[in-house]
Amino acid sequence: MSDLSFMEKLISGDKRTIARAITYVESEFSEAEDILKGAFTNTGKAYRIGITGPPGAGKSTLTNQLCKYLRSQDKKVGIIAVDPTSPFTGGALLGDRVRMAEIGNDEGVFIRSMATRGSLGGLSHKAVDCADILDAAGYDYVILETVGVGQSELDIAKAADTTIVVIVPESGDSVQAMKAGLMEIADLYVVNKSDRPGADQAVNALKTILMMKEHDADTWLPSILKAIATENKGIEEIYKAVGVHRNYLTEKKFFTIRRQKRYLSRVKKIVENKILHELWKAQDDTRLDKYLEKVITDGISPYQVADEIILNFMKKFSNR
Amino acid sequence: MSDLSFMEKLISGDKRTIARAITYVESEFSEAEDILKGAFTNTGKAYRIGITGPPGAGKSTLTNQLCKYLRSQDKKVGIIAVDPTSPFTGGALLGDRVRMAEIGNDEGVFIRSMATRGSLGGLSHKAVDCADILDAAGYDYVILETVGVGQSELDIAKAADTTIVVIVPESGDSVQAMKAGLMEIADLYVVNKSDRPGADQAVNALKTILMMKEHDADTWLPSILKAIATENKGIEEIYKAVGVHRNYLTEKKFFTIRRQKRYLSRVKKIVENKILHELWKAQDDTRLDKYLEKVITDGISPYQVADEIILNFMKKFSNR
Repeated sequence: MSDLSFMEKLISGDKRTIARAITYVESEFSEAEDILKGAFTNTGKAYRIGITGPPGAGKSTLTNQLCKYLRSQDKKVGIIAVDPTSPFTGGALLGDRVRMAEIGNDEGVFIRSMATRGSLGGLSHKAVDCADILDAAGYDYVILETVGVGQSELDIAKAADTTIVVIVPESGDSVQAMKAGLMEIADLYVVNKSDRPGADQAVNALKTILMMKEHDADTWLPSILKAIATENKGIEEIYKAVGVHRNYLTEKKFFTIRRQKRYLSRVKKIVENKILHELWKAQDDTRLDKYLEKVITDGISPYQVADEIILNFMKKFSNR
Repeated sequence: MSDLSFMEKLISGDKRTIARAITYVESEFSEAEDILKGAFTNTGKAYRIGITGPPGAGKSTLTNQLCKYLRSQDKKVGIIAVDPTSPFTGGALLGDRVRMAEIGNDEGVFIRSMATRGSLGGLSHKAVDCADILDAAGYDYVILETVGVGQSELDIAKAADTTIVVIVPESGDSVQAMKAGLMEIADLYVVNKSDRPGADQAVNALKTILMMKEHDADTWLPSILKAIATENKGIEEIYKAVGVHRNYLTEKKFFTIRRQKRYLSRVKKIVENKILHELWKAQDDTRLDKYLEKVITDGISPYQVADEIILNFMKKFSNR
């Protein structure tokens, strides 16, 4: 193995190399960009499934069961679990241990958790980069799992070919999912823990809401499934429903369109990140403090200060 | 009135002028920036209260009651209600009608709702600009109310002098607030609907969690209050607790530090928005499409495409 280059090892699926590559991306090491550039040529084969929903909906359990099912079909599975919520509770860590015990020792499975305080945008960006790494490393399915608390799951959903929104039967949950913008990203709904009261009502509520949305013959109408992930019930049905959506994407040529859109939005995000990095690198921190002193005495608007900073940035740029 | 300039009318508190100024900000009209620059010199007098929490916690009702209490103290109150969730349900609209009937006709109250699909970051940015307008227009208190679903309420909290996190007694709600990062921003907790079972347990759970956090003599330990907003119970206590926090900020000099931090982060955000606007304005849309065609045939990484776009942007910049 040692005679192979890093990229060759990555593409051959060597787990230690994959783990290192992901660490580079996660830690924003300078190596990351070259790895991603190299890996990209080998991407496009993995099918990407996004799994999201409110906290406590049972996303991790469902991901684990779906993973086991895919393994029974002899598919290699990469899982990226994004937890943008506070690490204060240690919830992610606990979930990880259960998960590792269940599927972590399987040679055909790669699991990685990513958590952070604060910058959600950055995290989902990195998760998509990591999906590329797993794709290039030969995983047939890459599952991007994230808790539904804002912008991050929308970003993750954009990066998936099929997005599954998981909710529980409890009243109000479907409405909350709706309010949180989850309705707009779901290709497939799973009412998990469906042995609890209210499961059928939740399914009906979702159906009603979906029918209210505008649609024509080409519009995908999300399937709504019931499951009890802890008892491994409904998992095969989810797998099949993902297949139906995949066929729909392929037949209607939406598959290519979706991936093109994803590509474009990634390019935009990368450009923005780099420009902003350049911008603040070019700024002298003491300069901002100087402005701060001025504003306290003179009451200068932040908009005026911003103008000065931009002018300064442009000057530095043109002198390069 | 007609002989006065727009800015004079704004500062005199003319409601129609305030409404127009906010519309300029909301719609990103070119007039907005000059208005904000002009208004800024007159800001700094209003006390800013952020009110956030999960959907259904009763934030609007609590805001309304607090507003009525402040009015009874002869304080002028501006309210900016930010609803970053999907307008699909029409929830915001319904809440607005109730609200307008209750306090909307009071001469000393100005209410404005801001809602959007998508760009959360942009919305909270605008909400802070609108707080400046209300501050300059002479409101003693500006209440920024937002639903807690991600990054936006963190941004709003940064813009407030005192942030109130509202939760309900139902089990798990406090834990969810914790997971959603609300614990890190609260200066004051309100367990609303505290006539429901579990209110005392929720208070105790919060206390336990708070004591787990690291703190020293200078650390503010958030107060935890119970309220029943619909019955106007606990509102005076909330008002008093805000006062205690305000005194703490002033005595410990944190007030100025907080406002300086807020100022700095606004400058940064404005600079970034402007630079990115400049960036995409400079790009030829067809150029991105051209790259897109290339990648489909050649498998070029988005990182490589990004590099080319940045190079191109730099060249344009230096030719100005």
